[in-house]
Amino acid sequence: MATVHLLSDEEASAEALAVFADIRATRGTEHVNNFWRALAHDPALLRATWERLKAVMRPGALDPLTKEMVYLAVSVANGCEYCIHSHTAAARAKGMSETQLGELLAVIAMASQTNALATALQVPVDEAFAAEKSG
Amino acid sequence: MATVHLLSDEEASAEALAVFADIRATRGTEHVNNFWRALAHDPALLRATWERLKAVMRPGALDPLTKEMVYLAVSVANGCEYCIHSHTAAARAKGMSETQLGELLAVIAMASQTNALATALQVPVDEAFAAEKSG
Amino acid sequence: MATVHLLSDEEASAEALAVFADIRATRGTEHVNNFWRALAHDPALLRATWERLKAVMRPGALDPLTKEMVYLAVSVANGCEYCIHSHTAAARAKGMSETQLGELLAVIAMASQTNALATALQVPVDEAFAAEKSG
Amino acid sequence: MATVHLLSDEEASAEALAVFADIRATRGTEHVNNFWRALAHDPALLRATWERLKAVMRPGALDPLTKEMVYLAVSVANGCEYCIHSHTAAARAKGMSETQLGELLAVIAMASQTNALATALQVPVDEAFAAEKSG
Amino acid sequence: MATVHLLSDEEASAEALAVFADIRATRGTEHVNNFWRALAHDPALLRATWERLKAVMRPGALDPLTKEMVYLAVSVANGCEYCIHSHTAAARAKGMSETQLGELLAVIAMASQTNALATALQVPVDEAFAAEKSG
Amino acid sequence: MATVHLLSDEEASAEALAVFADIRATRGTEHVNNFWRALAHDPALLRATWERLKAVMRPGALDPLTKEMVYLAVSVANGCEYCIHSHTAAARAKGMSETQLGELLAVIAMASQTNALATALQVPVDEAFAAEKSG
Repeated sequence: MATVHLLSDEEASAEALAVFADIRATRGTEHVNNFWRALAHDPALLRATWERLKAVMRPGALDPLTKEMVYLAVSVANGCEYCIHSHTAAARAKGMSETQLGELLAVIAMASQTNALATALQVPVDEAFAAEKSG
Repeated sequence: MATVHLLSDEEASAEALAVFADIRATRGTEHVNNFWRALAHDPALLRATWERLKAVMRPGALDPLTKEMVYLAVSVANGCEYCIHSHTAAARAKGMSETQLGELLAVIAMASQTNALATALQVPVDEAFAAEKSG
Repeated sequence: MATVHLLSDEEASAEALAVFADIRATRGTEHVNNFWRALAHDPALLRATWERLKAVMRPGALDPLTKEMVYLAVSVANGCEYCIHSHTAAARAKGMSETQLGELLAVIAMASQTNALATALQVPVDEAFAAEKSG
Repeated sequence: MATVHLLSDEEASAEALAVFADIRATRGTEHVNNFWRALAHDPALLRATWERLKAVMRPGALDPLTKEMVYLAVSVANGCEYCIHSHTAAARAKGMSETQLGELLAVIAMASQTNALATALQVPVDEAFAAEKSG
Repeated sequence: MATVHLLSDEEASAEALAVFADIRATRGTEHVNNFWRALAHDPALLRATWERLKAVMRPGALDPLTKEMVYLAVSVANGCEYCIHSHTAAARAKGMSETQLGELLAVIAMASQTNALATALQVPVDEAFAAEKSG
Repeated sequence: MATVHLLSDEEASAEALAVFADIRATRGTEHVNNFWRALAHDPALLRATWERLKAVMRPGALDPLTKEMVYLAVSVANGCEYCIHSHTAAARAKGMSETQLGELLAVIAMASQTNALATALQVPVDEAFAAEKSG
C-alpha cells in the first residue's frame, strides 16, 4: 500500500491531468503508471519531476538504453523496489536483451563488492586518478 | 590512510606478485593501483577479486565503456570515494567525453530523486511491469 | 512476514508487558504496534529502544512535528518500509498537512539528487563552511 | 580532489556565469561555493539543479530552517560529506542553535537504529497505518 | 514478483542444473532456493556466484556461524529483504540462539546509530587508530 | 574537519567530563577518542550513547570480538569512515588476526554482491525461510 491514495483520472486535478496527458503523448500509451498517480497530490512536484525526467532521458551523447540501464543500476544500489521493476521493464521495452541484463547484473554485483572492499580498507586514492591529469 | 599497509612489490608475496603481473599485462601499464596493494595482504581474496573483475568487464553484449559507466553509477550510489575516482578515470581512459559524463551525472541525479520519491510514497508496483508479460 | 513471531499480550513476558503498558499510557491508545511486538522477544532491547525513543521525541528545542518529519526523512533515505509507514502516520497524527508532506517530499528528493551529484563529483568542502568560523 | 576541475569565474561559460549571478543575488553573497563550480562544466545541469533548489527551499508550508534540517538529515543518511558540511553551515546561518543541532542529531541517531531494527526483523506494516484511514 | 521468471528444474539449462546439483550435494537438501532459480537465466553468473559463496563461507579462521551473522548484519545494513530472510534462517540452522539474535540486533542497532552520529559530525579519525601502529 | 569543535578536557562541561572518566575507567586508557569529544557538546546525548554502547558491547551470548566484527561490518556497509577506522582498531585490540580480517572482508564483499543481485532480481522469499517453521 502507498502512503497516499493513488489518484485516478477522475480524482486528479486539471493541472495533474495536463501532466498525465503529456506522459501519454510522450510515451504513446494510455497507461499512466502508479508513480505519477501518487505524485499527483502535489501537481507542482508532479510537473517538475516529469519535466526533468523527460529532459534527462532524451537521446543525447548517451543513447536511451544506456541511460535506462544506468537508471536501473542506481535504483538497485538504492534498493528502490518500485524503480527496479519500472526501469527493468523500461529497459526491456527499449531493447535490452536477457544477455545484456545478465551482464548488467554482473557489473552491478562486481561494483557492489569492490565498493565494499575499498571502503572497508579505506584505500587512499591514487595520484594517477587526478582529474587535472586527464584535462 | 588505509586500515592496512599498502604493499609494495618488494613486500608482496609471490602469489600476490603473480596477480600484479597479470594486472600489468592485462592493462598494459606498470601501475598497480592502491586497491590491489591493499588487497595483497590476502592473496586468495586478491586473486578471486581480480579474476572476477577481469571476466565481468570483458567486452560482451555490453561494450566496455557502458560497463564502466554503470560501475561508476553504482559506486556513486554506494558512496565509495576510491571507486568513484578510479572508475571516473577508467571511463575517461575508455573514451567517455565530458558531455557523456554530464549526461551520466544527470541520470544518476534523476534516479536518486525518483528512487527517494517512490520509496517515500511506497508506490505499489504496476501489474504492467510483471516479468511474465515481457516474454 | 517477520523473521520472528509477533508476540501478543498473552505471549509477552511480564517485563515486555510493562513496556507495552508504558507505550499505551504515553500514547493514549490501546494499540501496541508490530515493531514493539517483534522486539518483545528481547525485553532488554525492547525497553532500551522504547525509553530512548520516548526521551528523544519529547518536545524540546525542536517541536514534535519537526522531529517526526526528520525521522521520516531519515527512514526514506534508509529505505525502511515499516518506518516510512509508521512515521508518515505519526506525522499526520501530529498535524502534518498534505501540503507539508508535499514540501517534505520535495526537500527529500532535492537532497537525494544533490547528494548524488556532490558525491559523484567528489567536491571538496569549502573553507567557508568550517565550524570554527561559526562558533 | 574533485573528479573535475572547479571552474573559476574566468573559466566558466557565459551560461554558467548567469547562474552564478543568480546564486549571488539570491543569497546576497559574493561566494559561489564549490558544488556549483564543479557543476559548471555542464551549464544545463547547473541551471536545472539551481533553479529546482531555489524553488524547493523557498518558504512555504514548511519554514526554511525546517527544510534545511531535513536536508541535512537526508545528507547524513546518504553519507554525503560535502552536503553535511554545506547544510550544517546553512542551517546555522538560518538560525539553528547548538541545542537544536543536538536534538536533530539525536533524532537522526534514533531513526537510524529503529530503521535497522525494523528492517532486520522485517516487521509487517500495521493495518492501522493505512493512508486511506487518514484521508 | 521477481523481475525474471524463476526457473524450475525442468526449465533450467544443463549448465544451471549442474550448479543446482552441487548446491544440493553441498547443503544436503533437495531444496534449491529462489535466489539460485532467478540467477539460473545466466548460468555463468550463477556458477561464479555459487562457487565464490561456497569458498567464502567455508570454515576458516572464522567459524561458519560467525560468518553467517556477519552476512546477516551486512544484509540488514543494505536493506536486502530476501537476504535478511535467507541468512536469518541459515544462521538459525547453524545454531544461532534467539538470545544471540537479540545481541546481534543490538549491535547492529548500536552501529547504525553511531555510524549516523560520526558521519553527521564528520569526526576526524584519531591518529591512534593508524594501521601502521598495529602492524 | 568536524562540523563541531572537538572539546578538550579543559573545555568540556562537568557532565561531559564524568562520562569521559567512565570511558577512561572502562577502557583502561587515558585516550578519549574524537567521537566522544565531538558528542560532548550535548552531554545528554553523549551519556546516552556511551551508556548504551557499554551495555551492548559487554560479553554475553556473543563474545566481544564477534560483536566488534559485526560492528565493523555494519560500519562498512554504511560507509562510515570514522567508524571503520575505530572498529578495525578495536577488533585488532581484541585479538582479530589479519587472517580473520581477510575472511571478514571476504564475507562482507560476498554479502554486498548477493544483496545487490537479490535486490536487482526482486527474488521472492522462499516459504521455507518462514520464522514460524523454526520456532
